[in-house]
Amino acid sequence: MLRAAVLGATGAVGQTFVRLLTRHPLFEIVSLVASERSAGKPYREAARWLQSEPLDGRIGDLVVEGVDAAPEADVVFSGLDASVAGDVEADWARRGYAVVSNARNYRMDPTVPLLVPEVNPDHLALVDRQDWGSGGFIVTNPNCSTVGLVMALAPLHQAYGVQAVHVVTMQALSGAGYPGVASLDALGNVVPFIGGEEEKMATETKKLLGTLTEAGVEGADVTVSAQCNRVPVMDGHLEAVSVRLGGSPSAADVAETLRSWTSPLAGRGLPTAPEAPLLVTDDPTAPQPRTHVHLGGGMTVTVGRIQDCPVLGVKFVVLSHNTVRGAAGGAILNAELLHAEGRIGAGARAQAA
Amino acid sequence: MLRAAVLGATGAVGQTFVRLLTRHPLFEIVSLVASERSAGKPYREAARWLQSEPLDGRIGDLVVEGVDAAPEADVVFSGLDASVAGDVEADWARRGYAVVSNARNYRMDPTVPLLVPEVNPDHLALVDRQDWGSGGFIVTNPNCSTVGLVMALAPLHQAYGVQAVHVVTMQALSGAGYPGVASLDALGNVVPFIGGEEEKMATETKKLLGTLTEAGVEGADVTVSAQCNRVPVMDGHLEAVSVRLGGSPSAADVAETLRSWTSPLAGRGLPTAPEAPLLVTDDPTAPQPRTHVHLGGGMTVTVGRIQDCPVLGVKFVVLSHNTVRGAAGGAILNAELLHAEGRIGAGARAQAA
Amino acid sequence: MLRAAVLGATGAVGQTFVRLLTRHPLFEIVSLVASERSAGKPYREAARWLQSEPLDGRIGDLVVEGVDAAPEADVVFSGLDASVAGDVEADWARRGYAVVSNARNYRMDPTVPLLVPEVNPDHLALVDRQDWGSGGFIVTNPNCSTVGLVMALAPLHQAYGVQAVHVVTMQALSGAGYPGVASLDALGNVVPFIGGEEEKMATETKKLLGTLTEAGVEGADVTVSAQCNRVPVMDGHLEAVSVRLGGSPSAADVAETLRSWTSPLAGRGLPTAPEAPLLVTDDPTAPQPRTHVHLGGGMTVTVGRIQDCPVLGVKFVVLSHNTVRGAAGGAILNAELLHAEGRIGAGARAQAA
Amino acid sequence: MLRAAVLGATGAVGQTFVRLLTRHPLFEIVSLVASERSAGKPYREAARWLQSEPLDGRIGDLVVEGVDAAPEADVVFSGLDASVAGDVEADWARRGYAVVSNARNYRMDPTVPLLVPEVNPDHLALVDRQDWGSGGFIVTNPNCSTVGLVMALAPLHQAYGVQAVHVVTMQALSGAGYPGVASLDALGNVVPFIGGEEEKMATETKKLLGTLTEAGVEGADVTVSAQCNRVPVMDGHLEAVSVRLGGSPSAADVAETLRSWTSPLAGRGLPTAPEAPLLVTDDPTAPQPRTHVHLGGGMTVTVGRIQDCPVLGVKFVVLSHNTVRGAAGGAILNAELLHAEGRIGAGARAQAA
Repeated sequence: MLRAAVLGATGAVGQTFVRLLTRHPLFEIVSLVASERSAGKPYREAARWLQSEPLDGRIGDLVVEGVDAAPEADVVFSGLDASVAGDVEADWARRGYAVVSNARNYRMDPTVPLLVPEVNPDHLALVDRQDWGSGGFIVTNPNCSTVGLVMALAPLHQAYGVQAVHVVTMQALSGAGYPGVASLDALGNVVPFIGGEEEKMATETKKLLGTLTEAGVEGADVTVSAQCNRVPVMDGHLEAVSVRLGGSPSAADVAETLRSWTSPLAGRGLPTAPEAPLLVTDDPTAPQPRTHVHLGGGMTVTVGRIQDCPVLGVKFVVLSHNTVRGAAGGAILNAELLHAEGRIGAGARAQAA
Repeated sequence: MLRAAVLGATGAVGQTFVRLLTRHPLFEIVSLVASERSAGKPYREAARWLQSEPLDGRIGDLVVEGVDAAPEADVVFSGLDASVAGDVEADWARRGYAVVSNARNYRMDPTVPLLVPEVNPDHLALVDRQDWGSGGFIVTNPNCSTVGLVMALAPLHQAYGVQAVHVVTMQALSGAGYPGVASLDALGNVVPFIGGEEEKMATETKKLLGTLTEAGVEGADVTVSAQCNRVPVMDGHLEAVSVRLGGSPSAADVAETLRSWTSPLAGRGLPTAPEAPLLVTDDPTAPQPRTHVHLGGGMTVTVGRIQDCPVLGVKFVVLSHNTVRGAAGGAILNAELLHAEGRIGAGARAQAA
Repeated sequence: MLRAAVLGATGAVGQTFVRLLTRHPLFEIVSLVASERSAGKPYREAARWLQSEPLDGRIGDLVVEGVDAAPEADVVFSGLDASVAGDVEADWARRGYAVVSNARNYRMDPTVPLLVPEVNPDHLALVDRQDWGSGGFIVTNPNCSTVGLVMALAPLHQAYGVQAVHVVTMQALSGAGYPGVASLDALGNVVPFIGGEEEKMATETKKLLGTLTEAGVEGADVTVSAQCNRVPVMDGHLEAVSVRLGGSPSAADVAETLRSWTSPLAGRGLPTAPEAPLLVTDDPTAPQPRTHVHLGGGMTVTVGRIQDCPVLGVKFVVLSHNTVRGAAGGAILNAELLHAEGRIGAGARAQAA
Repeated sequence: MLRAAVLGATGAVGQTFVRLLTRHPLFEIVSLVASERSAGKPYREAARWLQSEPLDGRIGDLVVEGVDAAPEADVVFSGLDASVAGDVEADWARRGYAVVSNARNYRMDPTVPLLVPEVNPDHLALVDRQDWGSGGFIVTNPNCSTVGLVMALAPLHQAYGVQAVHVVTMQALSGAGYPGVASLDALGNVVPFIGGEEEKMATETKKLLGTLTEAGVEGADVTVSAQCNRVPVMDGHLEAVSVRLGGSPSAADVAETLRSWTSPLAGRGLPTAPEAPLLVTDDPTAPQPRTHVHLGGGMTVTVGRIQDCPVLGVKFVVLSHNTVRGAAGGAILNAELLHAEGRIGAGARAQAA
């Protein structure tokens, strides 16, 4: 078992890390880190536990540590809010830790991998270009609205080249954290605005589909236009996507390409990698958050309603679980890839004290 | 006062007709028509009243008539379901009635006006080409998801020419009628499919923006691609729209064009025409169903989040009330235009007995 | 027209005051007062307007004042939060204003009327026992969960004597203000706890049904047990009530008593008093928030499902609009009673400068 | 493995049976039975699968049989609608099957056990009094709103004697099946009526808490008054309960009694019996459907907010999962008890052919 710490452990993302790591076959939580307000309290008191599974007894008893903690940890998961993640993650990297972060702060840093293991596993090599003077490093996963999109685009980019993407999101409330969206703004309503989200979907998609070169990641030449909406759904971002592809394939071609795609993780035995990372459904009413969001433990991305689009070429709908695939689960999969590549754990680099 | 009958009076659309006509300054309900199951009962018993305002006492006492009724009526509003509207509306037109219908059956008929008074009032002249052998005629309003879109497109089509439209809808539950969508499919969920809706948005938009010629309405040369979704909102269809326009105007140009547009109904005193038929907001979180759907008594269409779109040119969000502007209210406005044009009421054509 | 000021004008209750007073036939808003953060800004900028009707133009232009303002006002409505209402309302009363408050701070004060005009209008005379040294005074309305209950109990207390009340509330989200309940706690969920609510329902009910004596209000000898729940409803508190009454009347007796009750306001022409302050329905599925909450402009309280209760005697369900009848609307009705009684406005007492 | 058939396999309850039995350690589905409309089709086509876990491949391939099927089955689970369950279940019992039913038809039959294994396991002996001429029999579980209540009452009845119960339910939408409640009636609304539910809670509770005698089950001398409401929650019935108990224990006494209660199933190894069948929480905001309904795989019943009730003595809130504990899961636990008692499976009685 590798020893794991969680930064920002009491927040919404942090709690999802804790839940997903509780019975993880590879990682064992040894340290929970949060703000000074929580430090010194048992985790069960410090966290207002919001997960639908009960808090594990042993973990509830762990005493929360402050950000200056120095646990013996092989990997550090960060669910920190962006307002503090910049400084804290840099500090932990400088102190030699392998930081696997869900925060947005370092995603576009030229030496930091923005990683979806099924999409751009080779970008992991970027960590060798980081120099924190300690052997520590930072790896990130994309924004929760980007990951479903890019999982669907990656096979198409390989097969045809994606030229332009128009995407309208219908995003779940849990994406805004806790307390997040006020119920009076959420119930029976749609809010056609999520701060910074439309920009992130464009820039992150280009980096994720980009090419690793000597000079860094060369962003893909893809034009992305996003319109982001908050809908009264608990978990699951649904996205209506239209794409212009090289060679103008038909909807049937695209469906076949997505169905026949094989994940680069297939056969590697990463515990969080779902059997079907990309599921293509021909049920005309799918995917829906209620029926599809939990597939593959929340790690399966589902694509449906693949149709010809008279404006851009092909259109479809994609669904992904925003707090699992789009946050904590995605980060854990990143860590599993780090382990499989020998970059964390026994035989990897030493940890700071 | 003109005498009005309502066909399909007990259904969801019919009830909205009844509510909106209850204190209408021009129309007075004289007959409520429904299926044989309801005929003979007082309306208060025949209808499971679902409106948020109480049923008017006089109207609740009206005895529902069957579809063979022959009321003395100057105008007949049809809220019939499409499964029966084809035959029944034809029968009433043949019997000399002015049928103002919300049903989809005759919308694309070459001699039937598909009418949004602010968009294509001249199309009303099509009724002169109908020949039911009686002086009767049929006028229709578009589908509830089309009307908001076309209200926003019309000024742009005039100013620039609309070449292509990509629209993703987030449609309210009330658009599916009653009982409509099962709550287990609706609560905390999005269904990315509404039967026939995507096609209707394309064909109806082309007719509405089309040109009246000797040969009929020549559809506008606009490519429309729609993806329609049902979201857990009670009333109000929100639509994320991207457009390719002639001359490639900027978002700022488009905003100015929409703001400075003047409705052709301005100053004509139609009671249901709102003061602001097209409201442009620069609140970055608007429009939302909860805060904007009731503006102008549900007849105002609101446009917001006008931005440059790197894929198609300009994008924005549009909101309209689906059961008022998109159904009964739109039909009543059509009838008010008929009256203003002298096509119904005293001095118009005779009614059958 | 009487000149009205609103304290706490930017908050949720304050906004409802503003909306309801906008076209009020008796009161005209002359001053909007809020915290220092808002003071000096036009109201349209200071308030995040959340009402479903648009903000009136003139009122949106009013410049918000701080709590030290001294407007020429005949009546001052307070929508202040309880955390500040105690001091601020006392200060305004001391400065000679007639303060009509929705805050809880002075409700149980022995010289302050806790008033529902249809229930205990005679308690208004308590204001004569207040001595702020200025002619100012404070009048309060009950908590939003109490008012519906007490409207249903009052006729029963008169007819039979209410001995014991068991009430389980299902309360709307708007009762918690803005931002109030987090959407993750609200959507598809029930929270069986509202801080302080169960206690308030017991103590306020006893005062409201109590008797005005020389010594003050002698609380009614009624045992009240409340269990309060938050449900995902926007507006409208629904309450399941069981009562033990003197003489053990049947459900049919109780229904008849409620139906034949006449409001003491009947015929007095108070603008906010609804035609039917207490509506008894025999629709077995009513009352529901969606269909009944807006009756009487939100001032009608609806009672339904009156049945024999094998445990306590009779049970029923009561619905009231929590932000209208249960907050701003109730306070405005209190002010209308003050005016009808000659206690505010011309001929009443002088205002401070 | 025991061979299991499911009657009414395509409905909402039937699907939950299928989901829960899919990886059950004791039962293996060998036959899925539904109406003639479904018979002959693969289950994946016949059922509109609504569960949040994907349909198992082998089970999806099973060809649905009609009600005249005669599978080799050790136990038959019935998720039939009450409109047909009466005749069909009798027919299967006559044909020698052990029918474990969730339908209401035979619950109050004097020779049919109405069973909650933790509450009245001895009532199972009633099956020996059934005479279908074949060795077949019927066992039932209570209504979804009764089971949570009775789980909380049973320890109190043992300890003190329950004299009177007042219960107000807030019931989930899934309790109404599919399509069930219309979304327009559900979203943001409460319906204070569920047909027949209030009566069932009274009669079933008396039988469940009753005593098995020579003459049958003598109902407990408990007065029950229920008010049932439908709230917009997906899964989980929350109930506000007040009880009058013998000896007038305090809330603290009751809490201690519930905490120290031991299930009669403890240590018997029934796979569906949760570790904690009755969980007592002192979190003042619990239990909530969102955070507690899934505990124990949906089989744990949670009690919270235990307080003194000035009217009846003690009050609390109880939550149970309506489609698991309250339907399919409860029936499966009944079958596990049948197996543990040697009443089904090898060594039990012979099955018809």
